[in-house]
Amino acid sequence: MATTPAVPNRQRQVEEELVRAVLASFQDTPDPRLKELMQTLVRHLHAFIREARPTEAEWQHAIDFLTAAGHITTDRRQEFVLLSDVLGASMQTINVNQGADASATEATVVGPFFVEGSPEIPIGGDMAAGAPGQPCWVEGTVTDTDGNPVPGARLEVWEADEDGLYDVQYDNDHLAGRAHLFTDDQGDYAFWGLTPTPYPIPHDGPVGALLEATGRSPMRASHLHFMAAAPGLRTLVTHIFVEGDDLLTSDAVFGVRESLVNRFERHPVGTPAPDGRDLSGRSWSSVRFDIVLSPQPR
Amino acid sequence: MATTPAVPNRQRQVEEELVRAVLASFQDTPDPRLKELMQTLVRHLHAFIREARPTEAEWQHAIDFLTAAGHITTDRRQEFVLLSDVLGASMQTINVNQGADASATEATVVGPFFVEGSPEIPIGGDMAAGAPGQPCWVEGTVTDTDGNPVPGARLEVWEADEDGLYDVQYDNDHLAGRAHLFTDDQGDYAFWGLTPTPYPIPHDGPVGALLEATGRSPMRASHLHFMAAAPGLRTLVTHIFVEGDDLLTSDAVFGVRESLVNRFERHPVGTPAPDGRDLSGRSWSSVRFDIVLSPQPR
Repeated sequence: MATTPAVPNRQRQVEEELVRAVLASFQDTPDPRLKELMQTLVRHLHAFIREARPTEAEWQHAIDFLTAAGHITTDRRQEFVLLSDVLGASMQTINVNQGADASATEATVVGPFFVEGSPEIPIGGDMAAGAPGQPCWVEGTVTDTDGNPVPGARLEVWEADEDGLYDVQYDNDHLAGRAHLFTDDQGDYAFWGLTPTPYPIPHDGPVGALLEATGRSPMRASHLHFMAAAPGLRTLVTHIFVEGDDLLTSDAVFGVRESLVNRFERHPVGTPAPDGRDLSGRSWSSVRFDIVLSPQPR
Repeated sequence: MATTPAVPNRQRQVEEELVRAVLASFQDTPDPRLKELMQTLVRHLHAFIREARPTEAEWQHAIDFLTAAGHITTDRRQEFVLLSDVLGASMQTINVNQGADASATEATVVGPFFVEGSPEIPIGGDMAAGAPGQPCWVEGTVTDTDGNPVPGARLEVWEADEDGLYDVQYDNDHLAGRAHLFTDDQGDYAFWGLTPTPYPIPHDGPVGALLEATGRSPMRASHLHFMAAAPGLRTLVTHIFVEGDDLLTSDAVFGVRESLVNRFERHPVGTPAPDGRDLSGRSWSSVRFDIVLSPQPR
């Protein structure tokens, strides 16, 4: 932990007066929640500056960092989400929004790669759409916290290919490795995807430079993204992780939760697929992921 | 002050575990100062999230805000500096970098409008360069904290015109209202500028929207910017403010310091200029601003 340098009384008074003035400037904010957010932000931001005591050059460096993050951000590249992710801020926001002891499936980070407009696939369909990788059969049941099946739940699923790339990172507009489907009357779903593999978060920008400068790895534990939504239930954004993956304990975005680590069964070449699909002499894997959705918060 | 909602024990534990994991991820940062800055940032950022408990929609709003700030930022428009300014962060950074009881001239914010490459003017020259406004004769002496004059000190001066615009906000590339000059052998300087007038910070971007939503004014107290540099002395970035300006107590960026408020004498039409300049029947003003530079910090 850093220690606060000794600050003379008169100096401390000048610093505290400024904090009071900034807090007061937000006093007339009409929306009470915005007022609370801004005043809380001001208190913690100034506490940071007063403890860390950045030089003016260091503060300018922070401005330059944010500027570079803004300039690399496009519709397909979100550096501020990456920044929030690698600082654990995204995961902490998820923590404060869901009770840790809920009986529902746990949430994790949405990450920067979800995009609207995925194609719909039928149950048993292939969301990989040509993205390279080992086929993986994913199946499960969606229920509420009372154990009732949830028919018609909408599942968005997306994942990187075996080269570690999402389709939005391709040089062309080819859509692959993302789809949505709906659970059947029994709340069941199944689809073909790819066995998740580890990959680095995009690290050719300022966030990558920060990881490099701080001796951190950009690697994410292997995972497949889910977003599950159904009327009257809380929308869940989560991943499934792969049992045995070395990166489970050092995920770059702190997204791993033990309850989300799943056993992926490996099936050698020649093992028949559950739906009779012709796997053209490839090995494949399978995993079961049952999803429990909590009630809509009031 | 916001009150922290009661958080169940198990929930608190999950939140604290995450903070520990994020702090630990920066443990191997080779540069000790960077490590201190990042770990201090992580502690305060997570303390903010754990106290404010933003919803995921609120967090997304913050990401969108930063994205918009990044996209409006160019070489001539710096929204992140504006953000730092209106949150008092720029001023607090200045506070922590200069002793409040120093005998030197006090510093204030640099603001977003300084650019390199101003033209040099001789002593007594006109930095307005055609920018509209009332002429103002500015003179003073630069000394060190022992009272010795500082010859050859470089003074950068810049200010808005009477329409509240800096040259970088003009639609063309005309350079006006900025210049640099050097003190003479006695440490004296003098130049023609414009009597400072109040103006709003650029408020057509996300920072302007934030001020609007929080019921804050974008107006800055009238001022003229100085940057004073000399070998062996600490570079000073400051303003002079105008005695009697109504905005002295509500400056949008918290930049006003009492010691920087100066008396501007108003001279009616026909009063001869100190250097015999032909003022073409205009009124003018004059101000004296002596600058004391502190020694270079070790």
